[in-house]
Amino acid sequence: MAKALSIDGKRLYSSLAELGKIGAYKDERTGIAGVNRLALTAADGAGRRLVVKWFRQAGLHVTIDKIGNVYGRRRGLEDHLAPVMMGSHIDSVPTAGRFDGCLGVLGALEIIRTLNDAKATTRRPLVIGFFTDEEGCRFGTDMLGSAVATRRMTLAAAYALKDRDGLTVEEELRKIGFLGQEPVGKIKPHAYLECHIEQGPILRHKGLDCGVVMGVQAISWQELTITGKSCHAGTTPMSFRRDAGLAAARLNVALREMTASGRYGREMRAAMGAIRPIPGMVNVVPGRLICSVDLRNPSDALMKKAENDFAKLCKKIAKLDGVTITSRRTAKTPHVPFDKSVQDLIAVQADRLGLSHEPILSGAGHDAQEWSRVCKTAMVFVPGEYDGISHNPREFSTPKQCADGVNVLLGAALALAEER
Amino acid sequence: MAKALSIDGKRLYSSLAELGKIGAYKDERTGIAGVNRLALTAADGAGRRLVVKWFRQAGLHVTIDKIGNVYGRRRGLEDHLAPVMMGSHIDSVPTAGRFDGCLGVLGALEIIRTLNDAKATTRRPLVIGFFTDEEGCRFGTDMLGSAVATRRMTLAAAYALKDRDGLTVEEELRKIGFLGQEPVGKIKPHAYLECHIEQGPILRHKGLDCGVVMGVQAISWQELTITGKSCHAGTTPMSFRRDAGLAAARLNVALREMTASGRYGREMRAAMGAIRPIPGMVNVVPGRLICSVDLRNPSDALMKKAENDFAKLCKKIAKLDGVTITSRRTAKTPHVPFDKSVQDLIAVQADRLGLSHEPILSGAGHDAQEWSRVCKTAMVFVPGEYDGISHNPREFSTPKQCADGVNVLLGAALALAEER
Repeated sequence: MAKALSIDGKRLYSSLAELGKIGAYKDERTGIAGVNRLALTAADGAGRRLVVKWFRQAGLHVTIDKIGNVYGRRRGLEDHLAPVMMGSHIDSVPTAGRFDGCLGVLGALEIIRTLNDAKATTRRPLVIGFFTDEEGCRFGTDMLGSAVATRRMTLAAAYALKDRDGLTVEEELRKIGFLGQEPVGKIKPHAYLECHIEQGPILRHKGLDCGVVMGVQAISWQELTITGKSCHAGTTPMSFRRDAGLAAARLNVALREMTASGRYGREMRAAMGAIRPIPGMVNVVPGRLICSVDLRNPSDALMKKAENDFAKLCKKIAKLDGVTITSRRTAKTPHVPFDKSVQDLIAVQADRLGLSHEPILSGAGHDAQEWSRVCKTAMVFVPGEYDGISHNPREFSTPKQCADGVNVLLGAALALAEER
Repeated sequence: MAKALSIDGKRLYSSLAELGKIGAYKDERTGIAGVNRLALTAADGAGRRLVVKWFRQAGLHVTIDKIGNVYGRRRGLEDHLAPVMMGSHIDSVPTAGRFDGCLGVLGALEIIRTLNDAKATTRRPLVIGFFTDEEGCRFGTDMLGSAVATRRMTLAAAYALKDRDGLTVEEELRKIGFLGQEPVGKIKPHAYLECHIEQGPILRHKGLDCGVVMGVQAISWQELTITGKSCHAGTTPMSFRRDAGLAAARLNVALREMTASGRYGREMRAAMGAIRPIPGMVNVVPGRLICSVDLRNPSDALMKKAENDFAKLCKKIAKLDGVTITSRRTAKTPHVPFDKSVQDLIAVQADRLGLSHEPILSGAGHDAQEWSRVCKTAMVFVPGEYDGISHNPREFSTPKQCADGVNVLLGAALALAEER
């Protein structure tokens, strides 16, 4: 085990910059360079080809599976053993920065380059994976590639997904030249590690160097349709109104009160992000309103309690305002806990490097949550500037922040790769 | 004075039906026939020509002024005296019924026809006016024609108004053949009367035959821009959020509490009709939100108090939620009280006809509020079915409701026309 190894932070950062040029655009409002590498577009294809080139230059054996996941493998001394896999994604939302996903893939590549430079060997083979359409922006299902590789979703179901123009995943994979031949689910890792930007403000706010990710919180999305009665805002006395907008407003305020109450744990989060009153005119009381409700909780039990209590609130407010409220579930994922031993190992590596760290929950979904079903898994989080803004051209982590996270990843990967 | 006169309700209703065919369309959702005679469109032009034809057939002398208002004049025995004017409008919102405005114009025409049939004379001349673009849907200024005729707005300013395609009022008047030659403001009526559907639920709910309109309530429109900070709904702890949507929700609930408090009179009305969160996505806390606030009050003093207190609330909620709130005024009209003697006269006519009535405030704007600045003015309101729904194909008043209102208008007009 090569204890003294340390990655080349400059090389990592310049790789991030070079990949960030593919799909680059200038944000009209801010003038900042953004990235648009929506999954399975020409830009995604170009990004994939660059990373595959780098994989090959680093001596990795590249395979592509039937859902377009790309794997780069480095032999181990006991090459028949299950590999340690590191990975993430290089597709992006349409208005992205250059770190989301890419840090995990290019960080793992930097680790391979570092091992190569040092002529270091590992007992187990190492594999880097980058997975198809993690963002889910185009075909509506996030973590698509890793979900198929880990058998949560069938290949047929994934192939049939369509974008808004009716183009299927299968066609689009073929078009960009990444409809691979390897069977999905062939690789059974010994462990899975992922380094990712936090995409939130916590680490930066606490002044921490990195986060040891305990797992991904449960997510519950609903779309509410509130139906009252549209009427003239000038001529209709208040007692006659059945204002769908008012009911939505009461629910929005109630969500904030729920999170503040502590009854659903200290980590419950809630947001009403989409709000669409109909007809939405100054002098018309909205007769209908469609809105979203996004609930998060690290505890499945507390999430269930919050969902039940929110449903009761809907009934109460519907009665109060003379409206009906119907709910359609649009997403639901349970809490995903990561492996405690891998978390401990990551914390030990951070300590050895003198880096400050704390356990942290992931608020967003990641490929790691899929792989956690098939092998022991954990993640390293890297802080982000500007309150960790992400999915935005302003997304930014410093060279040191990136290098620290990847050095922790390196240590943890090497330790796992020596396990029998 | 022709005391026993009574209009022909069937003839009135069939005229309403015939005018309603111009610009008719079938509402896709309900299958009900609607009317679209947006101001100064070809349909408006066709409607105008039909009514002008009817005016001439009724022996009226037709003039058109420079803003396209059309006047039909019937001689009086003392023809040099200022006329009694009755009027309203025949333009419509894009999704209208057949009663809004048209009842006032065709009701006045039915009165002329009735007088003609009875060979009845009046001391003062009678004038029917229908005024350009009362609805304001196309060029952004409502009561446009009557505002120019009564000198609230200059002809030049009115001509320069553009629709969303950049077409001006002047061009469009010329195009439909209603750019008249008469100077605006030439007619100084002795009194102005208008019969209109209530466009609200009050009369129908109370089972009244008609309403004696006391005036038009004050109107205050604001557009609020709430600026917080957009962030990821999964990764951002509640304590970091500056949720523009939550602030708007608190304001919406606060508006309802203000109306319920009684502190701004029993007749204060408030609505948040337009609500637009940005970016408006399920998993993004809105960083910005634009919404409308519509306040109504019969008292200018109480309106001012409500506006001031609402502004204080905005400051308080901005502080609470860490957002900024700026306000842009989009409309402001004071309370317009109608002439008490004309109201009394209307009430007396209703009593004589055995019709139940009550004083009522208008929640919507009407041409009458413009004319009230130049002569004594009041209105008769007719109840509407379905809670008085209006600006909608379902807008509906029965033949009897319409005839009752116009018979009251007839009595009041004849009484005023005999005044020295």
